[in-house]
Amino acid sequence: MKDPCDLTAVEAISRIVQGKLTRAALVASCAERIKTREPQVQAWQYLDIEAALERARARDKSARNDVLQGIPFGVKDIIETADMPTEYGSRIYRGNRTTWDAACVAITRDAGGILLGKAVTTEFAHRPGGKTHNPWDPARTPGGSSSGSAAAVAAGMVPVAYGTQTGGSTIRPAAFCGVVGYKPTFGDFPLFGVREHARSFDTLSVIARSLDDVELFRAVLLKERPDPAPTPDGAALRIGFCRTPYWDQAEESTQRMLEDAAANLAAGGAKVSEVELPPIFPRFADAARNVGGFEFVQQLAFELTCHRDQLSEALLAGRVKDGLACSFQQYAESRIVMDECRRRMAEIFERHDVLLTPAAPGEAPEGHESTGNAIFNCLWTELHLPALTIPTFKGPHRLPIGPQLIGKWSDDRRLIAAAKWIAARLI
Amino acid sequence: MKDPCDLTAVEAISRIVQGKLTRAALVASCAERIKTREPQVQAWQYLDIEAALERARARDKSARNDVLQGIPFGVKDIIETADMPTEYGSRIYRGNRTTWDAACVAITRDAGGILLGKAVTTEFAHRPGGKTHNPWDPARTPGGSSSGSAAAVAAGMVPVAYGTQTGGSTIRPAAFCGVVGYKPTFGDFPLFGVREHARSFDTLSVIARSLDDVELFRAVLLKERPDPAPTPDGAALRIGFCRTPYWDQAEESTQRMLEDAAANLAAGGAKVSEVELPPIFPRFADAARNVGGFEFVQQLAFELTCHRDQLSEALLAGRVKDGLACSFQQYAESRIVMDECRRRMAEIFERHDVLLTPAAPGEAPEGHESTGNAIFNCLWTELHLPALTIPTFKGPHRLPIGPQLIGKWSDDRRLIAAAKWIAARLI
Repeated sequence: MKDPCDLTAVEAISRIVQGKLTRAALVASCAERIKTREPQVQAWQYLDIEAALERARARDKSARNDVLQGIPFGVKDIIETADMPTEYGSRIYRGNRTTWDAACVAITRDAGGILLGKAVTTEFAHRPGGKTHNPWDPARTPGGSSSGSAAAVAAGMVPVAYGTQTGGSTIRPAAFCGVVGYKPTFGDFPLFGVREHARSFDTLSVIARSLDDVELFRAVLLKERPDPAPTPDGAALRIGFCRTPYWDQAEESTQRMLEDAAANLAAGGAKVSEVELPPIFPRFADAARNVGGFEFVQQLAFELTCHRDQLSEALLAGRVKDGLACSFQQYAESRIVMDECRRRMAEIFERHDVLLTPAAPGEAPEGHESTGNAIFNCLWTELHLPALTIPTFKGPHRLPIGPQLIGKWSDDRRLIAAAKWIAARLI
Repeated sequence: MKDPCDLTAVEAISRIVQGKLTRAALVASCAERIKTREPQVQAWQYLDIEAALERARARDKSARNDVLQGIPFGVKDIIETADMPTEYGSRIYRGNRTTWDAACVAITRDAGGILLGKAVTTEFAHRPGGKTHNPWDPARTPGGSSSGSAAAVAAGMVPVAYGTQTGGSTIRPAAFCGVVGYKPTFGDFPLFGVREHARSFDTLSVIARSLDDVELFRAVLLKERPDPAPTPDGAALRIGFCRTPYWDQAEESTQRMLEDAAANLAAGGAKVSEVELPPIFPRFADAARNVGGFEFVQQLAFELTCHRDQLSEALLAGRVKDGLACSFQQYAESRIVMDECRRRMAEIFERHDVLLTPAAPGEAPEGHESTGNAIFNCLWTELHLPALTIPTFKGPHRLPIGPQLIGKWSDDRRLIAAAKWIAARLI
C-alpha cells in the first residue's frame, strides 16, 4: 500500500472525504518523506512543517467544506508569501519578507490548500543551477528554474507544487524528474506576487503527478468548478508531430522515442502528420532573445544598480548581457516579429488539436551547474501556447523523460483532454 | 522671474549645468512650495525632504555627470520604494515597506533623479477619490487615480511625477490639473514594483509640465539617449478627429472646444478628417469590463480573502463586483474580442498620424468622492495605444481641460512630435 504522501491530490481528497485519511496524517506523511529524502534532494528553500501540521489538525476538526480539503502544496521561492520568507534564489534577498501572499497562494489557501514551504528556485529563475539534486539520480540536475517544485513532487514530498516558466522552467524540470508539468496559455494564471523575469513570457505553472491533479489545480486557480475533461476518442484526434528546427539537438534516443510515439499514436487511430513551422521562424529566436533580455534587464534595475556585486557572474554574463545589448528600438521591433509569429501559429492549430514534440534533448544531464538545455521549450512559451509534459518514457540510463504536448492558444482544456488519451496509449 | 520649482526639468537641468542653479536650491524651492501649498492640495502620502536635500547637496559637490543632474521627482504610492513606505492607498498597507525600488525608481535614480516622496493614489488605483484636492480649485477633484502625481506637478511641488493608467488614471488627472500627461504604448515602460491593477491594461506614465520633460523621462525609462523629436510640418500631419461613441457624454463646452481645435488645426495646414471607430466596437466595452474586472479580482486575492473588512465599500461594489461576475470562460472570450479590436485600430493609423479626442467630459467636477468619468480614456488604454493630454483649453469655470491625442501603437515618437505642432497651434 502507498504511503499517503505518494497519493495524488485527487486520490488523497477522495480518501479524506470518505474519512479514510486525516489531513494531519497526510501532512505527517509528507513530513516523514521530506525527512528521509530532503538531505539528498534539497528541494526546499524554506519549510514550515509545524504550521502545516497545526493547520491540518485544525482542519480535521472543522466543518469547512472546500475543494482542496487540506491538501498540502509547495510553491517556487519566487512566489511571495506573508508568513514565509521569499528569497528569489538571490543572496540579495536572504530572509526577505513581503506583507502579502501572491494571488496563487491566496487563492489556493482559500480553496483549502495547506502551504508546506518554498521550493528552491535558481537565481531570479534564470538558468544556472541551485542546490537541488534530481531525485532519480543525485549526480544529475533536476532541471530548472522550478527545480525544487519538480524534485519535491517527484520525491513524494508534496503532491502538487507551483512553478513558473519564462523559457523552459517547468516543462524541462518536470520531464527530467518524471512528473507532469503544465504551463497554461500565457495570461491565464494570476501572477501578482510572482517575481517578474520577462513580462511578455512569464507564466505560472502546475507540477503534479497526474493530469487529474493538473486539472484540479487549474480549476482552483481559475475559480472554475472542477469539471475534468473527458478522454477524447483517439480517432478524432489530429496530432501534429513537430520535430522543430532544433531536431538535431535532440539525442538519438529522444528522436527514436518521439518517432515511436508518433507511430504508436497513429496505430491507435489518431491522425498523425508532420508539422513544419512557418518560414518566418528563423527570425523568431533572435526576436525572442531581444525581448526576453530587454525585459529581464528592465525589471532587474534595482538589483543591477544597487546590488550588482551580489548578482552571480552567470547571470551577468547571460541574460543581463543579452539585455544590455538590446536597445529599446530593437526590443520594439522584436515585439512585432513575435506577434506575427503568434498569429501564424493559429493557422497550424486549424489543422491540429495538439503538437507532439520533445520536452528536452534527452534525460537530465549530469552535474548541477547547468539545469539543461531549454531549446525545445522557449519557442512555445514565447508563442504563449499551453504546454504539457507527461512522464511516459525512460531514457538510455533508465531516467524519466517525457514528450511535450503543445495546445492551441487559449484552448487548454483540449490540450489536457488530448494528453489523457496520449498518456493512456504511451504509458 | 520664476521660482526654481516652477522650471521644467529640462530648464532646470540647463541652469544647473550652466552653474546658475544648485540642486540643493532646486530641492529647497520645491520644499518651500510644498510647505505653502500642501496643506490645501494634499498631494503627498509620504515625503522625505531631508533625505532629498542631503542627496542634492552631496550631488552638488560630486563630479558625477548624468542625464537628470539631480532633478527631483515624485512617484504614485503604488510604486514601491526601498527607503519609503508604499501603501497603495489602502488601510491594509499602512507603513508597508518593500526591500526593493520599483524598476522605474531605480532607473530614474540611476540617471540622477532625486525622489522627493510618494504621491497620493486612490485605493489600489481604483476610481473613488483620495485626500488630494485640485490645485486650481480645492473644492474640485484633481482626477485620479494618479491624483497626487498630477496635483503635485500642477502646483509646482515637483517638475515630474510618475503615475499609472489602467483606465484613465493619468490622462484625466493631468487634464483636470492643467499639466501634460503621457501614457505610452502598453508594455514600453517597466512595471516591476508597480502594484498590479489589471495586468492587460496597466501602464506606467509620466506627468510633467512640458512635452520636452515627457521626452526626457521617456528616454531615461527606455535607456535611450535623449533625442527630442523635431516638430513636424503641420501640412504633413494627418489628424483624425474622433468624437468616439461617447460624444454625447462630453459637455457642450468640451464639444465646442474640440470642434474649434479641429478647425484651427485644419486652418494651420494639417489634413483633418473625422474618424469613426469600426463597427466591432460596441462589443469592446463589455469585453474590456470583463477583462479588467476579472484581472482586478484575480490580483486582489490576498486582500479579498485575508483583509476583506479593510477594503472600501466603493471598491467592493465597483470593480470587485464586476470581476466576481465574470467567469474565466467569459474572460478568455473577451480577451479575443479585444485582440480583434486592437488589430482593427491598426487600419485607422494607416490613414492618420494622430487622433484628436476629448480627455474628459469637461473640467474637473466638484467634490472629492469621485475622480470623474474615465469614459474618454479607458478605450485607448485598453487598445494599448499611446495617449497624451496637453493643457490647451480653459473651460467655462476658467479651469484647465486639455484635449487628448492618441498615437499609433508602438509609435510614441510620432505622437509626441505631432503633439508639439498641435500644442504650438492651440496654446
